Amino acid sequence: MIHNNTISKSRAIFTGDRPTGALHLGHYVGSLKNRLILQENGDNLTILIADTQVLNNDLSKAKNVKNNILEVMKDYISVGLNPTKVRFALQSKVLELFELTNYLSNIVPMNQLLRVPTLKKEAAMYLGKNSSNLGFINYPVSQTADIILFEPDLIPVGEDQVPVLEFGNYIIRMFHNHFECNIFKKIVPMISEIPRLVGTDGSEKMSKSLGNVINLNSTKKEIETSVRKMYTDSGHVKISDPGKIEGNVVFTFLDLFHENKEEIKNLKQQYQRGGLGDMVLKNMLVKDIDYILAPMREKRNSLSDNQLLELLDNGTKKAISQAQFKMEEVRNIIFQ
Amino acid sequence: MIHNNTISKSRAIFTGDRPTGALHLGHYVGSLKNRLILQENGDNLTILIADTQVLNNDLSKAKNVKNNILEVMKDYISVGLNPTKVRFALQSKVLELFELTNYLSNIVPMNQLLRVPTLKKEAAMYLGKNSSNLGFINYPVSQTADIILFEPDLIPVGEDQVPVLEFGNYIIRMFHNHFECNIFKKIVPMISEIPRLVGTDGSEKMSKSLGNVINLNSTKKEIETSVRKMYTDSGHVKISDPGKIEGNVVFTFLDLFHENKEEIKNLKQQYQRGGLGDMVLKNMLVKDIDYILAPMREKRNSLSDNQLLELLDNGTKKAISQAQFKMEEVRNIIFQ
Repeated sequence: MIHNNTISKSRAIFTGDRPTGALHLGHYVGSLKNRLILQENGDNLTILIADTQVLNNDLSKAKNVKNNILEVMKDYISVGLNPTKVRFALQSKVLELFELTNYLSNIVPMNQLLRVPTLKKEAAMYLGKNSSNLGFINYPVSQTADIILFEPDLIPVGEDQVPVLEFGNYIIRMFHNHFECNIFKKIVPMISEIPRLVGTDGSEKMSKSLGNVINLNSTKKEIETSVRKMYTDSGHVKISDPGKIEGNVVFTFLDLFHENKEEIKNLKQQYQRGGLGDMVLKNMLVKDIDYILAPMREKRNSLSDNQLLELLDNGTKKAISQAQFKMEEVRNIIFQ
Repeated sequence: MIHNNTISKSRAIFTGDRPTGALHLGHYVGSLKNRLILQENGDNLTILIADTQVLNNDLSKAKNVKNNILEVMKDYISVGLNPTKVRFALQSKVLELFELTNYLSNIVPMNQLLRVPTLKKEAAMYLGKNSSNLGFINYPVSQTADIILFEPDLIPVGEDQVPVLEFGNYIIRMFHNHFECNIFKKIVPMISEIPRLVGTDGSEKMSKSLGNVINLNSTKKEIETSVRKMYTDSGHVKISDPGKIEGNVVFTFLDLFHENKEEIKNLKQQYQRGGLGDMVLKNMLVKDIDYILAPMREKRNSLSDNQLLELLDNGTKKAISQAQFKMEEVRNIIFQ
């Protein structure tokens, strides 16, 4: 595992998102900021828009994917990812990914596959009344194919994704042993040290399905509405009351988004003593978030749909070329 | 289910073989003769050389596949299949088959999949020490994709394959219900009435792995060697001894390959009475088999490898076009 602080030059980094909707501050904090750092560092980023993975276990999730792809592209560019430095690719267009998944599935024993933590709890249900779909089981294999076909040096992931990547390395070892070759690069996770952003409601994770997000395309008005509703401290009724910092969502956000850390430290002390109202803090936070999102909004307005789809198309074509080249190598090894 | 005798004009027929080795008399009796009838009837045959399916559950089976593809093509043409009437396609080149398999896997519940008879006995083993690979489980889904992407009217199969095709129809129904569409043609099996050919050793099935085959590319010498070793009746020691017909492999073969059925009837009576030697019958059978294989040998010698690979390549290109066209329809339905 390699951490963000060990930065060297021009590494191939592979990452991606499922186009399930517009990206939000959770994505910004959790992955996009990191990608901007990697871009500035001169690394070669490939970002796969994993539209096929959205369907995993449930084809009905395909609704809106088409539109979401466009939204995600808008988010990428408006956040500052530079298409001359970053390659964007659409998963479903790279048919070689399906092909490699299929071949790999013939060396992956079911009993090993079912030990992957995300599948483990499903295993007991297989023969029951409610079962997952085959595609669900297939996920660690198809994700492995996504990665190894593009031969990255590093994969930025959260801690929870590490077991799936380790399973990918197990698949690689089996393939290499089977064919006495060394064709695939080891998968090296790059653990992000940036913490997961809580939801505006204080729940553990900012997530579209929980309705506790601030989208990157929010207007200032929308930011205000979200921040106004944020939980602070239910015991902090009057301004003069002492307030709690722990579990106070507004302070959690200010810690992340307010540049002047010293100021926050002082405000926290004042809040705990009493004499500091929530509205003052919330107005500060609205300003801080808008400071980040305003330039994105401006950039977003300058982008045309066609321009974005063309960018994605160009990146996808390059990804297909790379996948075809690698897959030809793989085929030659399988069908010696 | 439609039987061979209900012949109409120009139906799209889909069939195929796994390129595990040269084809033998069992294939001739079981499927190739039927295909020749369909060809003569003016039907549009697509024959998929299922190289990917060879790897199912075990990638090491890929050894020799490349060469076997060529051998199978030689068998096809030498047996009389006409490339101007029949489309030959190589499965692994049609990447849309992998793609459709992947999408379908997201509507196939594991518990239903494990009821397919060929998978049933595997189900209990999933969590055990020895387990099949994921690819094995995937087989009924990928076979369904193979079929429905080419939209055939009929699939010639043996009785034992019917449950897998029925499972394919179950997948189709789920897809149609899910997306409220009617995009895939129902899979209609065409049950072959021609019996399965026994092995030269009298075992139930002629099969390469049992070493009891007569390949279509056999020389007359090789036919003689195989027929000489055929089991007749261990009680029939002297020519004058009465012999049994039942379980007598030579008579089983003569029933199939000797044109003059009346003559066989008389020979059987004579054999049962006593006074007819095995060698007379075996020599007859060698002649009968060679009568079928000699013109194939001649045709085979006139074929160049390049010519055959070009035929396969042309057919595959047409299959890819068809698959791309259909898959575009499928994608438009999934990603509305």
